Amino acid sequence: MDKSQEAKMGQLVASLLDSYEEHAVICNIDSDNRLNRQMIIEILEMVRQVLFPGYFVEKKLKGATIRYHVGELLENIDYELTKQVEKALNYAEENKAASYEEKRKKAEDIVQQFLTRLPWLREILAKDVQAAYDGDPAAFNTDEIIFSYPGVFAITVNRIAHELHILGVPMIPRIMTEYAHNLTGIDIHPGATIGEYFFIDHGTGVVVGETTVIGKNVKIYQGVTLGALSTRGGQSLRNVKRHPTLKDNVTVYSGASILGGATVIGEGAVIGSNAFITSSVPDHTKVSIKNPELKFNVRGSVHVQELGQEGFFNRKERD
Amino acid sequence: MDKSQEAKMGQLVASLLDSYEEHAVICNIDSDNRLNRQMIIEILEMVRQVLFPGYFVEKKLKGATIRYHVGELLENIDYELTKQVEKALNYAEENKAASYEEKRKKAEDIVQQFLTRLPWLREILAKDVQAAYDGDPAAFNTDEIIFSYPGVFAITVNRIAHELHILGVPMIPRIMTEYAHNLTGIDIHPGATIGEYFFIDHGTGVVVGETTVIGKNVKIYQGVTLGALSTRGGQSLRNVKRHPTLKDNVTVYSGASILGGATVIGEGAVIGSNAFITSSVPDHTKVSIKNPELKFNVRGSVHVQELGQEGFFNRKERD
Amino acid sequence: MDKSQEAKMGQLVASLLDSYEEHAVICNIDSDNRLNRQMIIEILEMVRQVLFPGYFVEKKLKGATIRYHVGELLENIDYELTKQVEKALNYAEENKAASYEEKRKKAEDIVQQFLTRLPWLREILAKDVQAAYDGDPAAFNTDEIIFSYPGVFAITVNRIAHELHILGVPMIPRIMTEYAHNLTGIDIHPGATIGEYFFIDHGTGVVVGETTVIGKNVKIYQGVTLGALSTRGGQSLRNVKRHPTLKDNVTVYSGASILGGATVIGEGAVIGSNAFITSSVPDHTKVSIKNPELKFNVRGSVHVQELGQEGFFNRKERD
Repeated sequence: MDKSQEAKMGQLVASLLDSYEEHAVICNIDSDNRLNRQMIIEILEMVRQVLFPGYFVEKKLKGATIRYHVGELLENIDYELTKQVEKALNYAEENKAASYEEKRKKAEDIVQQFLTRLPWLREILAKDVQAAYDGDPAAFNTDEIIFSYPGVFAITVNRIAHELHILGVPMIPRIMTEYAHNLTGIDIHPGATIGEYFFIDHGTGVVVGETTVIGKNVKIYQGVTLGALSTRGGQSLRNVKRHPTLKDNVTVYSGASILGGATVIGEGAVIGSNAFITSSVPDHTKVSIKNPELKFNVRGSVHVQELGQEGFFNRKERD
Repeated sequence: MDKSQEAKMGQLVASLLDSYEEHAVICNIDSDNRLNRQMIIEILEMVRQVLFPGYFVEKKLKGATIRYHVGELLENIDYELTKQVEKALNYAEENKAASYEEKRKKAEDIVQQFLTRLPWLREILAKDVQAAYDGDPAAFNTDEIIFSYPGVFAITVNRIAHELHILGVPMIPRIMTEYAHNLTGIDIHPGATIGEYFFIDHGTGVVVGETTVIGKNVKIYQGVTLGALSTRGGQSLRNVKRHPTLKDNVTVYSGASILGGATVIGEGAVIGSNAFITSSVPDHTKVSIKNPELKFNVRGSVHVQELGQEGFFNRKERD
Repeated sequence: MDKSQEAKMGQLVASLLDSYEEHAVICNIDSDNRLNRQMIIEILEMVRQVLFPGYFVEKKLKGATIRYHVGELLENIDYELTKQVEKALNYAEENKAASYEEKRKKAEDIVQQFLTRLPWLREILAKDVQAAYDGDPAAFNTDEIIFSYPGVFAITVNRIAHELHILGVPMIPRIMTEYAHNLTGIDIHPGATIGEYFFIDHGTGVVVGETTVIGKNVKIYQGVTLGALSTRGGQSLRNVKRHPTLKDNVTVYSGASILGGATVIGEGAVIGSNAFITSSVPDHTKVSIKNPELKFNVRGSVHVQELGQEGFFNRKERD
């Protein structure tokens, strides 16, 4: 590097340092809030290895020695997760005044409680895998689902993250679910409450908002939004129920949007593709949209397909 | 770790071991069906290096020595893929009674057959790249397409996986295509049959079902579903043709859904954005939807845009 | 390997070498155009570390020594990016006749100019993060946004890639934005021009075309397409403005499509979910679609929901 280059580089570093002070909102220097995103993802993968033993490791797991394998994984999760939770707690207003020891203790307690939930997580995830198998004729077997289905990956990450969310851990749950969103195109906020036997088929483009409540045995398809009516209120809407409630045994087909915190989809209801729902639907109701009229243009000769009841009845096979 | 912690951890391990027995559907201990997902992805990347020489390696490939590079890659693919196929064969009912040697031999034969298809895969992928270049005004050159287009990545993985699928390999093809789904948001089942010069533009949200049949020179856009009318039958629908057929030279614009195993889209047909098609379309037909009426609200004064023929004609530029 | 296997492998290698000659469009042997996609992604990550100091590194950054950390990152970026740009310049027609030294010099100049833009990139990205915080009630704080929001990741990559694009670098910008597309499902062409305070919520399925122009303080949701009316002209449409213009303070809700190079969305306009817009919209106008009629089928008894003004008014909460 010659002198003039060195000078230029020095100038650039100086102007970046100025910028670090000026735009402090995107600056994390001299801070104890240094979450390690990569480690959080590694913790998530370790938890998946505990929950699905033998699927995501190279070596063959043997019943005779499995306890050592699991014990070591748990110890690593305990150690690394406690470190991350401790840092994350710095982000919560109520911990600002806490001493180092108090935060450490709180982090340890949270991780202990989280770990005791693992057997329950296995129980509910076994049901989710079963729901995927029962619901998809293309599924070869349950192992294929575990190895490859994005919907099962997303709900696994969500159920793990949701446990940390209800234990009051800031930041980490969302980092986990956005990692799943990256991989699957399925965007479920860790705050969403989701019942057992949940299945998302295909999944790309699914959005499930923070205050959504979903019952048992619900099935949703790609492109479904369970969202808010308006977020113009911005931060003033924090903690308000803005997203819908789906009761047990609801099916929502691809591309449908169900919006609003007061919107309740009744038990056993079926919502057809591309429906746009902003008010409640009674139990056991099938809702389908009148499809837009189709124009057929064959070498210049045009006709419009009359819809009406037939248009709806074309859809009945879906129900 | 103090005594009480040690006891807690012991208790947790014990309850997880209980859970491994109780919920055996998500437990893969003492099993020979240990597919290695990470290795399957590495094999896929090695195959891509053979098919697109010089693009996905750091060193410069020289014509004078390329044979050694290719030979070594093929040897690695042969070795690693045979190991994985051997394990995957355990999943097929018809191999349950086979001896270790029989399964080994079958895996070797499958991989040999797969490898002999590689020159053909290059031939068809060269056409897919050409289709992307011809179809996209934003394409700078064919190398840009190879380096970065998600549609080309997805069809590459799909064509590789489809070869293994038709050779009767369980599990591995789907793990490959779901890896492509992760990266691209394009979800093509390895069972789908796809003709040459296929191009998917943008691609996020595309779903192509297991029994779909696609002709030559077909172009589809982001958010297109080639799907089933209903999957309520679940596993009873396995192997039934549930997904549509697209003949040669079909174009399907963004967000359109074409559903049902009896639905045939005729040669040269063009399906407009967001169309919802559940019955066949004749050859050389352009289908567009009557767009929903638009309401314009300017500072309290409202008017509704009259559609009708104009609404359709607005769309003609697309055709 | 026995003799017969060796012969088979030799034959396979030979037929692949033939294929490398025959289908040269997907062959990069003996070429100096060997971009290293993996290194381009590493460069991108280093640039993000400069722009968001302390977020994406494991160690704690200290104000006292931050200049060394930044200086070293910049030196690495300078060195590696210059190498990649030099290779990329080989792809541009106008550089075909240039000497090695001329291309080297040009690459160095481009990278120098790029580096001097980093403080400005920090300034505009700080505004994007603020826009995300202001616009999303689910946002816990700005650090959560930086760590996990896909929309912020995508716009960060896009702003970096756009700088290289306007400096005339081929290939590399698109490789960067397609990497972001892989991770987020958000597909923004590096050519798009995007004003400050830009926020994409959720984001999966968003497409922003090459010649799109977006003003300040614009917010778009998942599944929005800012696209071309028709790309049937293929390569003949290169460099023609094919994508829309959005003026300041525009909001576009989920699933809406805005198409065409002559389409201008006026200042402060709000485009409702699933609207399909192919002509201009005046300033301060709220556009919403008449939702498709809904059929409700409850245990055999059917009724169709009358829409009309109510149908529209149901949507007013969104505006």
